[in-house]
Amino acid sequence: MEAPAYQRIAATFRGRIATGVLRPGDQLPTEHDLADQFGVARQTVRAGLGVLVGEGLIVARRPRGYFVREREHMVYRPQEKSRPRPAVPEMDRFSEQIAATGRTPSYSIEVALIEAGADLAERLRLDPSATVVARRRVRYINGEPTNINDSHFPIDLVRDSEIMLPAYLARGTDRVLAELGYAQHRAIDEIFVRMPTPDEVHRLGLGPGTPVAVHFDTGYTESGRPVQCAVNVLPGDRHRIVFERHWS
Amino acid sequence: MEAPAYQRIAATFRGRIATGVLRPGDQLPTEHDLADQFGVARQTVRAGLGVLVGEGLIVARRPRGYFVREREHMVYRPQEKSRPRPAVPEMDRFSEQIAATGRTPSYSIEVALIEAGADLAERLRLDPSATVVARRRVRYINGEPTNINDSHFPIDLVRDSEIMLPAYLARGTDRVLAELGYAQHRAIDEIFVRMPTPDEVHRLGLGPGTPVAVHFDTGYTESGRPVQCAVNVLPGDRHRIVFERHWS
Repeated sequence: MEAPAYQRIAATFRGRIATGVLRPGDQLPTEHDLADQFGVARQTVRAGLGVLVGEGLIVARRPRGYFVREREHMVYRPQEKSRPRPAVPEMDRFSEQIAATGRTPSYSIEVALIEAGADLAERLRLDPSATVVARRRVRYINGEPTNINDSHFPIDLVRDSEIMLPAYLARGTDRVLAELGYAQHRAIDEIFVRMPTPDEVHRLGLGPGTPVAVHFDTGYTESGRPVQCAVNVLPGDRHRIVFERHWS
Repeated sequence: MEAPAYQRIAATFRGRIATGVLRPGDQLPTEHDLADQFGVARQTVRAGLGVLVGEGLIVARRPRGYFVREREHMVYRPQEKSRPRPAVPEMDRFSEQIAATGRTPSYSIEVALIEAGADLAERLRLDPSATVVARRRVRYINGEPTNINDSHFPIDLVRDSEIMLPAYLARGTDRVLAELGYAQHRAIDEIFVRMPTPDEVHRLGLGPGTPVAVHFDTGYTESGRPVQCAVNVLPGDRHRIVFERHWS
């Protein structure tokens, strides 16, 4: 039994993208031309291409047409966070990495007091109704939102510290925590993969067919007390998460 | 301006799931009851619930109705791979982990000779037209497909070795590589997030709204030569990827 026409159209262009016949940024033929070529209605062409939009393979840029999606993966290295840094850094690591490629990094920052809820309570060993300080940032490259980095701290640890101020902290919150007596020695990275929430779609300007990685980074003191939990939301079309291992 | 009815229905149930009013496995009201309750056509109810199916929050089990999706995250630890193992293991790590929870692990294995292509050529430092041995496995838990683990080796390294046989290798391919003189000392883990291909949907039995993590694991000898590259495809609804870091 032959597949329905819209599926054949989807399969044709999926194949051309997979084999590199069509490259990132290339324009597909118009709906009109494809309707002629496959001998079907434009509505059918649109259904076929809609499948590929949902798979994140092409984007619709009206009124110009359909294009093969371009992906520029920012390298995201959780291990960098636990490597020694210069004593008086002028920039945090994200800014450093982006500025090094000639692009302009920026942030939006807000600080909120929230209830821990189940996910943070489990990781910070708090009651779900306990208050935590949420330092919420969206990171931008050249003005485009790139990822979400929401750090959370038990209120008792950071009350009246700079962490509570919604301002750029060049030396980073890890150093402030250390100054407060909560230096981190160990961290657990957990990565989940799911579709974005409507709020994430809005904050990050995500297109259809763009799943996210959710990276929980929980930091512990030498005595094993969890002192911070960051929730990073990384759109799949913009990130490559990299770790390095050495055999023991 | 009020949101369209189907969006209000989606928002209502998204909220009840997010706040835990509806828990994993719970059944939603029937389309009929929701149409009454919201004063809309069943078609509108179906559109609203369809949004949540696409977000991976609920599943449709016809003819019974809609249920909040249940997620059981298998812990996936790339670092385990580079930790010492008992000298004569009877099971590989996956089997060990699953059997420890009283479930039954199994594999399907096939071996193919393929062209490297761009992704593997870059990581194994080969020509894209070079031949590599692909050892393709689907891992099952209690007969349900769980993830894809396709390992790739330059043909010159593993010709006539057990790696070429499509059979279970209890001591693992890393040990066979070491016996052949290619012990690994370092690995790079790269994680990408995207929607699955139709082939992956088929091999893994994925439902709508289920993105995947693609984990490239490239292993290097002491002299820095890449000797294997595994491509693991991990459905987002079944995996939690975990790393542990210690400050240096």
